[in-house]
Amino acid sequence: MDETPIRFGILGCASIARKLSRAISLTTTAVVFAIGSRSVEKAQKYVSANAFIPPSVKLYGSYEGVLDDPEVDAVYVPLPTSLHLRWAVLAAEKRKHVLLEKPVALNAAEFDRIVAACEANGVQFMDGTMWMHHPRTALMKEFVADPERFGSPKSIHSTFTVPADPEFLKNDIRAKPDLDALGVLGDLGWYCTRAILWAVDYELPKTVTAIKGTVFNEAGVILSCGASLLWEDGKIATFDCSFLSNTTMNIIVTGTVGTLHVDDFVIPCVETSSSFLTSTKTRFSELGTEWKPLPSEHVVTNDLPQEALMVKEFARLVKGIKEGGLKAESKWPSYSRKTQVVLDRVIESIQRGYESLEVVD
Amino acid sequence: MDETPIRFGILGCASIARKLSRAISLTTTAVVFAIGSRSVEKAQKYVSANAFIPPSVKLYGSYEGVLDDPEVDAVYVPLPTSLHLRWAVLAAEKRKHVLLEKPVALNAAEFDRIVAACEANGVQFMDGTMWMHHPRTALMKEFVADPERFGSPKSIHSTFTVPADPEFLKNDIRAKPDLDALGVLGDLGWYCTRAILWAVDYELPKTVTAIKGTVFNEAGVILSCGASLLWEDGKIATFDCSFLSNTTMNIIVTGTVGTLHVDDFVIPCVETSSSFLTSTKTRFSELGTEWKPLPSEHVVTNDLPQEALMVKEFARLVKGIKEGGLKAESKWPSYSRKTQVVLDRVIESIQRGYESLEVVD
Repeated sequence: MDETPIRFGILGCASIARKLSRAISLTTTAVVFAIGSRSVEKAQKYVSANAFIPPSVKLYGSYEGVLDDPEVDAVYVPLPTSLHLRWAVLAAEKRKHVLLEKPVALNAAEFDRIVAACEANGVQFMDGTMWMHHPRTALMKEFVADPERFGSPKSIHSTFTVPADPEFLKNDIRAKPDLDALGVLGDLGWYCTRAILWAVDYELPKTVTAIKGTVFNEAGVILSCGASLLWEDGKIATFDCSFLSNTTMNIIVTGTVGTLHVDDFVIPCVETSSSFLTSTKTRFSELGTEWKPLPSEHVVTNDLPQEALMVKEFARLVKGIKEGGLKAESKWPSYSRKTQVVLDRVIESIQRGYESLEVVD
Repeated sequence: MDETPIRFGILGCASIARKLSRAISLTTTAVVFAIGSRSVEKAQKYVSANAFIPPSVKLYGSYEGVLDDPEVDAVYVPLPTSLHLRWAVLAAEKRKHVLLEKPVALNAAEFDRIVAACEANGVQFMDGTMWMHHPRTALMKEFVADPERFGSPKSIHSTFTVPADPEFLKNDIRAKPDLDALGVLGDLGWYCTRAILWAVDYELPKTVTAIKGTVFNEAGVILSCGASLLWEDGKIATFDCSFLSNTTMNIIVTGTVGTLHVDDFVIPCVETSSSFLTSTKTRFSELGTEWKPLPSEHVVTNDLPQEALMVKEFARLVKGIKEGGLKAESKWPSYSRKTQVVLDRVIESIQRGYESLEVVD
């Protein structure tokens, strides 16, 4: 196979793109090839301040410039959510593979148009949910998929909160209705929802009910909210997400015979070593004073950070299409879509006064 | 002060009473003095099988026998919830201090009659929520009460599940409508609710909304349920409790500047050493790849198990009343009552199709 790395174009100068540029630089199979901003000067300034972008990078004073460059294989799109539909669709139409930041769109209907464009043009779609690519996630999945150690899921809870300073709450794109109208739900709630779907093998719930107590900013953007989900077979999940609390990021998955705990699922506390806790068939000592057996801690070490593993996986799929004639991997847009479908129902439930809504897919 | 230990009478031969008998035997300030069962033979059999009960124990073929014994200072009442009102009130009327298993009553109105009887007769009331007396709980409380390390609470979650075998689900008192009509909510949900109230300094929520997905047994007793709580100031809490999942018992308290995690709050994994996790002012490394600072693990060692510490505290209060002319400590019935008030609303919300209900106290 060709040893040429996958050439990434980046649309915009979002701060998250610095993290992804470093991730790309840590792989041998991808390279930051072009950056497009609203002006060449802005792109130049961004590159100068970003040690992980190679000096050879091509600079464009527009996003179109990147999309029109025939040498660009794929684009990373960290633009505000309201711009995803336009730029992701255009990228696909220009036959660029699309790595799109989350939330993938303002709603599932918009996202379907992005997926349709990707499918029509034979390009890979993946969203930027980095923790999906951590080897710890694969090991946790082995646990929750194991009938002996875990059984079947019965209840799931996820909290993801990151405190925002007052400036952010007024001016960050994630708090502006015309840019990221989904607010904290699209930003942090995305991860909770994905974690819940991940735990149940992406089976959509039957109903979604927002939890009373949503906090909005003056512009009407959600700063704090939560929801409960119920499946056909009776399993339940709850989550809460907020810009108003200290950083907290956990998943608790309780199954018929086992339990999984992880307290740093989105961004591991330490980049190359992380852990999770499991217990199986937990009983108590004869008088009910101690656990038998004790929970187990599983430590996972990884050479590359999860965002580099995400880039590697994306580049591998792109290479397979580009050079191996393979088809795009459909599980990634499917996971994105289901996550978005649930978020849509949470928003709607909030709007309807916390009504329980059926999830119709 | 008199060195005579507080003389306990135990009503009934519940298996939990074995744990409490051991706890009493571990203290120097209390002793199991009498046991009442429906027959002397049953009480004798129970004592023979229970190494922690001194051979000198007095046996009664009725609960009244224990209550009529002038040498009995206090009673431990682990009877089914439906019998609490009758026996706790009678015990108080006979001037016995009352250590009552949870849930304290079938509803708050019943509980108020128990408290009224205790107050009228100047006896101490305490419920059997053992983890309240663990030194870890005091340290966790210091954390959540600290404006520097924790700030103020914004969201709380608690899961408490213990798997029951099919036999239990049909025949255990906690699954029979005429004995423990509150089912898993009164048994395990009691602890979740108490943990949530504990975290917010026992401020009652404004509304309580049960979470869709309650599971009942054939007799209509709840085997699995959950609820969300909302306070006047916007903080929220969720919990879920179940007899249908592996043992799980956690509290996550997310505050404005800190977070508390504990995964074995009701019964610590190990009797004399336990831990909890805190984080404060958690930020990320410059590229958002690691936590700064890392969470802290706090290890707590204790000589006596939490149930013995509960007995010690109860005995101390009883001694203060009996010998020191002190008044009963009112915080304990107050915590019990608030817990019961929330449980009442959860039940009512389930009955009313998951309606949000105001908490009127």
